[in-house]
Amino acid sequence: MNLDLILECLNSSQKSAEQRLFELLRFKSISTNSRYKSDCFEAAHWLVKQLAEIGFKSSLKKTDGNPMVVAHSDVKESDLLFYGHYDVQPVDPDTLWETSPFEPSIQESNSGPVIRARGAADDKGQLMTFVEACRAIIAVDGKLPCKISILFEGEEETSSPSLVPFLKSNVEELRSKYALVCDTGMWDEQTPSITCSLRGMLSEEITIRGPKKDLHSGLFGGAVSNPLQILARLISGLHTANGKVNIPGFYDGVEETSLELLNQWKKLNFSENVFLGKLGLSESSGEHGFSTLEKLWRRPTCEINGLWGGYIDEGFKTVIPSEAHAKISFRLVGQQDPEKIRTAFRKKIQNELPSDFEITFSNHLGSKATEFSICNKVMEKAKEALTEEWEREAVFVGGGGSIPIVKHFKEILNMDTLLVGFSLDDDQIHSPNEKYNLKSFHKGARSWVRILHKLSNIF
Amino acid sequence: MNLDLILECLNSSQKSAEQRLFELLRFKSISTNSRYKSDCFEAAHWLVKQLAEIGFKSSLKKTDGNPMVVAHSDVKESDLLFYGHYDVQPVDPDTLWETSPFEPSIQESNSGPVIRARGAADDKGQLMTFVEACRAIIAVDGKLPCKISILFEGEEETSSPSLVPFLKSNVEELRSKYALVCDTGMWDEQTPSITCSLRGMLSEEITIRGPKKDLHSGLFGGAVSNPLQILARLISGLHTANGKVNIPGFYDGVEETSLELLNQWKKLNFSENVFLGKLGLSESSGEHGFSTLEKLWRRPTCEINGLWGGYIDEGFKTVIPSEAHAKISFRLVGQQDPEKIRTAFRKKIQNELPSDFEITFSNHLGSKATEFSICNKVMEKAKEALTEEWEREAVFVGGGGSIPIVKHFKEILNMDTLLVGFSLDDDQIHSPNEKYNLKSFHKGARSWVRILHKLSNIF
Repeated sequence: MNLDLILECLNSSQKSAEQRLFELLRFKSISTNSRYKSDCFEAAHWLVKQLAEIGFKSSLKKTDGNPMVVAHSDVKESDLLFYGHYDVQPVDPDTLWETSPFEPSIQESNSGPVIRARGAADDKGQLMTFVEACRAIIAVDGKLPCKISILFEGEEETSSPSLVPFLKSNVEELRSKYALVCDTGMWDEQTPSITCSLRGMLSEEITIRGPKKDLHSGLFGGAVSNPLQILARLISGLHTANGKVNIPGFYDGVEETSLELLNQWKKLNFSENVFLGKLGLSESSGEHGFSTLEKLWRRPTCEINGLWGGYIDEGFKTVIPSEAHAKISFRLVGQQDPEKIRTAFRKKIQNELPSDFEITFSNHLGSKATEFSICNKVMEKAKEALTEEWEREAVFVGGGGSIPIVKHFKEILNMDTLLVGFSLDDDQIHSPNEKYNLKSFHKGARSWVRILHKLSNIF
Repeated sequence: MNLDLILECLNSSQKSAEQRLFELLRFKSISTNSRYKSDCFEAAHWLVKQLAEIGFKSSLKKTDGNPMVVAHSDVKESDLLFYGHYDVQPVDPDTLWETSPFEPSIQESNSGPVIRARGAADDKGQLMTFVEACRAIIAVDGKLPCKISILFEGEEETSSPSLVPFLKSNVEELRSKYALVCDTGMWDEQTPSITCSLRGMLSEEITIRGPKKDLHSGLFGGAVSNPLQILARLISGLHTANGKVNIPGFYDGVEETSLELLNQWKKLNFSENVFLGKLGLSESSGEHGFSTLEKLWRRPTCEINGLWGGYIDEGFKTVIPSEAHAKISFRLVGQQDPEKIRTAFRKKIQNELPSDFEITFSNHLGSKATEFSICNKVMEKAKEALTEEWEREAVFVGGGGSIPIVKHFKEILNMDTLLVGFSLDDDQIHSPNEKYNLKSFHKGARSWVRILHKLSNIF
């Protein structure tokens, strides 16, 4: 690979790269509303054409929902599979947008020029960093340094209903040595990062029923168990006084964070005060004895996401309701087993419930955590590449949430994933005025060139 | 008073008494919907006419809402003021009615014939027991045995907005030696009762605010205080393990129940199992060390009437909400001071809240309990009268809820109230298929004759 020439080529073609991204951003490919179905198809077609133009064998694959875009640089099994999504979130409330969400423009900001549009960061801008990297490599070298496949889906913002069936039906075509996903962010504006762990998740909804009908709290209060009080007690009992999750066996499979990661995170100059201050908070909370970054990236949690019952409108009604409800989710790490935890959670709740109460548990998603060793050639090389491009040591970070595709790649295609992305905390993803820094876009493309350059020596 | 003749007269005029009640029941005097304003006026006019017909000086008094009906047997200050209300609850869901709610009819039931209609028990049937008693007394004796005033309002089902101003503006006209209110029930089908205490009430609504916006529970969970968990902990802390309300000073002013009342209640053959069984429950709950009747009538409570926050629709959203809410009410007894308890409650909640959280308390109603001594001539005579009519010893019971008029009579007109009524637990008050036992109606009227007979010796 003529690395320097390729990077030079990217620098000199920035304007046309921006124009291409703008074309993609103009499609109103909102997947959450069927009104925009044809816009989604148009965005997919445009990507197929783009990839064909730079030499991929690309095609649009139908699903029950929005189509997949699949492209291969070679016929045989690929070394790398790059994943992104071309669908975007709705724009409402649209009155809060300072520019039209589907008319991308470059605007000045405190941190330099930004591309303002729905999807600029999530995920059209990010996926185009990789496409532009491939375009420049092929333009200079005439070919890519290894065999690359690309998969773009159009239903990520609606929980990807077609994705798992599609992966399962196309294992042979899609399976590669490693997956690349560009849907994460930088540590900060200067510091690139690789996400090496994602928490798993388990969610449960419970409905408890006490008295068989709503009762007057004057006529019955004091002699009847109130489901709202019982629920508050059950929820309160899910944590110990020192912030641990109080379910038997919950911490089975939770692993200590390696000294290597802890030492690296120490260097990040993370300030809990600044973190909390941005949220309007000042008090440290959560599990005692762990740093904030450990709590977010390496420790499991139990959170109440919804709670309701009784009279919740304006005014007052003196009711003892028959039912009370809660939505509860757990973030999992290491080898924690979601189904074991579900069972232990249900048993605990059932045990603590008055014997004359009924309870219904609604089964929601359960998925294990994903963790990748950082002592791995791909991770090491990617880190080198990012460090060279950004002239700042790249860091391995954790992700508090889940990125389901990473699990699917592991479980269905048996591939590990390299998670690299260039978005920033203030990109307003899913909100009005979404943006992507121009620097993220151009240095993102350069980063991928460097990563492919390093990785091509491995495969 | 020619007691026997008067009772005979009531027995022989049952059919015409029923027809008069039916006329009143036919007015759609629903006060909660302004569509029925003219129906309310018509019901009031009908009552004015009824009372004039039997010799009262009766008139319709305008208010900002529905009119008052005021009637006097004499010009000078009365001995007794009888209160009732002619407005009724809405009938929805009307599909659940087996008969038309404003076409009263007599139907057979397991416990004998019943009058089926909206308002049959609450409160048209009950107030007419008193009117019919007066009619029979005057028919036989030509006059009442003491000076009686009557007050009927038409806004009881909408929290009586005009009542307090009206009482305050008409103190001289309305003040009597004792008030009579017929809006309570029998202990059971055979046993008449006098309500000698009503719990007071204090209600509070709280909103707590933590993070300044809703957060993703994957990205922030574990390091940020979740308002729903904090609220569950606060609520859970409002009761001790043995069911006591856990607020400093809460029990100040709570008085022990007299042995006399306790002994009397022992004779009621109250079964906690039957009480709970009807509600679909089987476990004893609430404050340890007290009987169910004490818990309902003589002990204070803290109940959660509403609780909400986060995502409460279908499906799941992994959110840490910025806010959480609760509606909380207290039932008060004895000399408990609502404002002191409000202050102690707020202080406790504030103390237990994380220091970086904000809280808003919304001021709702606070009222002290009402208690009447049972060692009182009026109580004793009324008990004798009821015992004679029903041939079963009448009992003094407590009321778990509040009847605001009783407080207003005390505070504005400085009158104690005799609470006697003939409705039954299964009268479906406020629900479809409301009914009033024919026996309640006729023996109710006879009961008032006997009560007036006994009381006339006192005044």
